[in-house]
Amino acid sequence: MANMASGIPVYYRENAYEKLNTYLAENKASKIFILVDSNTHNFCLTPFLTKLTTEIPLEVIEMEAGESNKNLETCSQIWNVLSELGADRKSLILNLGGGVVTDLGGFVASCFKRGIPYINIPTTLLGMVDASVGGKTGVDLGNLKNQIGVINNSQMVLVDSVFLKSLPANEMRSGLAEILKHGLIQDEKYWNKLSALSTLNLEDLDEIIEESVNIKAEIVSRDPEEKNLRKTLNYGHTLGHAIESYFLTHPSKSKLLHGEAVAIGMILATFISSELKEFPRKKMQQITQTILDMYGKVEFEVQDVKEIMDLMKYDKKNEFGKINFVLLKDIGKPLIDCLVPNEVIHKAFDFYGKA
Amino acid sequence: MANMASGIPVYYRENAYEKLNTYLAENKASKIFILVDSNTHNFCLTPFLTKLTTEIPLEVIEMEAGESNKNLETCSQIWNVLSELGADRKSLILNLGGGVVTDLGGFVASCFKRGIPYINIPTTLLGMVDASVGGKTGVDLGNLKNQIGVINNSQMVLVDSVFLKSLPANEMRSGLAEILKHGLIQDEKYWNKLSALSTLNLEDLDEIIEESVNIKAEIVSRDPEEKNLRKTLNYGHTLGHAIESYFLTHPSKSKLLHGEAVAIGMILATFISSELKEFPRKKMQQITQTILDMYGKVEFEVQDVKEIMDLMKYDKKNEFGKINFVLLKDIGKPLIDCLVPNEVIHKAFDFYGKA
Repeated sequence: MANMASGIPVYYRENAYEKLNTYLAENKASKIFILVDSNTHNFCLTPFLTKLTTEIPLEVIEMEAGESNKNLETCSQIWNVLSELGADRKSLILNLGGGVVTDLGGFVASCFKRGIPYINIPTTLLGMVDASVGGKTGVDLGNLKNQIGVINNSQMVLVDSVFLKSLPANEMRSGLAEILKHGLIQDEKYWNKLSALSTLNLEDLDEIIEESVNIKAEIVSRDPEEKNLRKTLNYGHTLGHAIESYFLTHPSKSKLLHGEAVAIGMILATFISSELKEFPRKKMQQITQTILDMYGKVEFEVQDVKEIMDLMKYDKKNEFGKINFVLLKDIGKPLIDCLVPNEVIHKAFDFYGKA
Repeated sequence: MANMASGIPVYYRENAYEKLNTYLAENKASKIFILVDSNTHNFCLTPFLTKLTTEIPLEVIEMEAGESNKNLETCSQIWNVLSELGADRKSLILNLGGGVVTDLGGFVASCFKRGIPYINIPTTLLGMVDASVGGKTGVDLGNLKNQIGVINNSQMVLVDSVFLKSLPANEMRSGLAEILKHGLIQDEKYWNKLSALSTLNLEDLDEIIEESVNIKAEIVSRDPEEKNLRKTLNYGHTLGHAIESYFLTHPSKSKLLHGEAVAIGMILATFISSELKEFPRKKMQQITQTILDMYGKVEFEVQDVKEIMDLMKYDKKNEFGKINFVLLKDIGKPLIDCLVPNEVIHKAFDFYGKA
């Protein structure tokens, strides 16, 4: 039930609460702080608390929901609240929420008094299969995603798909993009299984989530510092991050969640792979259709594409001023540190627009 | 010439520049950013640059000098400047300055794109013997010292006492406090040598600095995560930090540098040691006199003492709501995690006032 491959124990469903309660009994924290956002406060906190058996004093800290609050100002507010509530080096933070809460809460814990322990309880599909596993913590800087952060593992990740019952459809779709990515970069059989799904029901999901966590944890354990293999997890993200940032700062544009932007990024990256790396053209068209069926299509004007390409300059994976793409030779065969001429990127947006 | 005990190479004088230039040649950074404050920009940057031989592009980033700028706002500004100037994961930060610059610059580097390498070039005595060695980075949160930060080693520390020529007398005295502390907690012979000094000239200093760095590096290497031994470096700091914070936020009070506050903290802690841990009374009086001869005396009103004691609640070394003091059984014989009744702290302030 647990995956230790990445050095972080990930536990599932009922077993996870037992492990958490054992952890709390064995590691006597001075105080427990539960970080929630307005949504998880409403929908997840009460069910979570009923499973907790501990005598350690608890405090709940609530932040505003949404990517636009994943910034240093929010951290600063939480650090002040922690200080006021008497948090010390033996305190423990439980992050109960989506990727924003676990990324930001992990960073808050990692820097408070030079680091206190934290545990992630992801409540979104994206959080379960991606954000909460692997030790990446951080916040955005202006419209630059995850520009500030550290790598520091949580003590444990608790995955319970029951939290997904209250998750809106677009949030489910956002998480699904990372699951699809795990198939594309690592496992054609898994991809085929995923692309055949018409709906996600909770039974399928439990299995799919574990498979996805295992793929991610295996990659992270083999390359925790992102020297090579871990970079493949960035598939679809170079353009995806830039698209996400761009839509975040243009209120006139429709709101785009992380995974929804990554889904577009994966279509673009797969097209680019077929142009530059002989990725099979027919598979590329099937992948495009599968993703479009799930996500629909977003309109890009010429000016949008220009500004999105400007934003890619700030991607964290860039080195020496070069934008590094992950591309595919085939499904499950990723290539890292690929340079892509600007005109091929333009061609990819054209392809997407006409697909 | 190098001290590798703590895992961080510390190099001195001319040899240090050779090592730095070799490092720059071997680790091809995409860009070098030199962080200075207004003082080191004026007094240290030019002599430093003349020693540097590299073809890698250089940028200088200047922050306002002083402890009151050691905060998240300054970090945020520097992170934005780094982004605008195209810093990437292969960039290198050189922190040229006192403890504020090396603590803050180390934190800035450790969190930028989840961590880029940095090198410390301390330009104050305090920085050389304390702040720049041991991997502690961070900033203040309001008036709480170093509340936010991470432990992350610099690639190298370059110590050149030539920078001290332009250092004001009170800054020299501030650094001397940490040197005296190294004697008190670790080495009576070293303490005796120090207390016999009437003035510090640069020749004595080179030797004294190396001895102090060696003491600190040895302690840090034996307990990098501050589980036990490293806590002894906090001698005089529990009250010292609170006194420093209090004076920082009360503009009506005379300005007190870190080491000046720690010097008072050491007199108080030594008195408390003689009350609670049988520290020899005569030595306590000699230590008090030595420190008062060097630092003079500061006045504390009843209200000041009350507020300073309130501030100690936030000390990072506290656990489970208890304030943990380092005390001494004798010179070189420290005791950690000591609890001190409030009335003994009041008695210590009384003793200081009448000494």
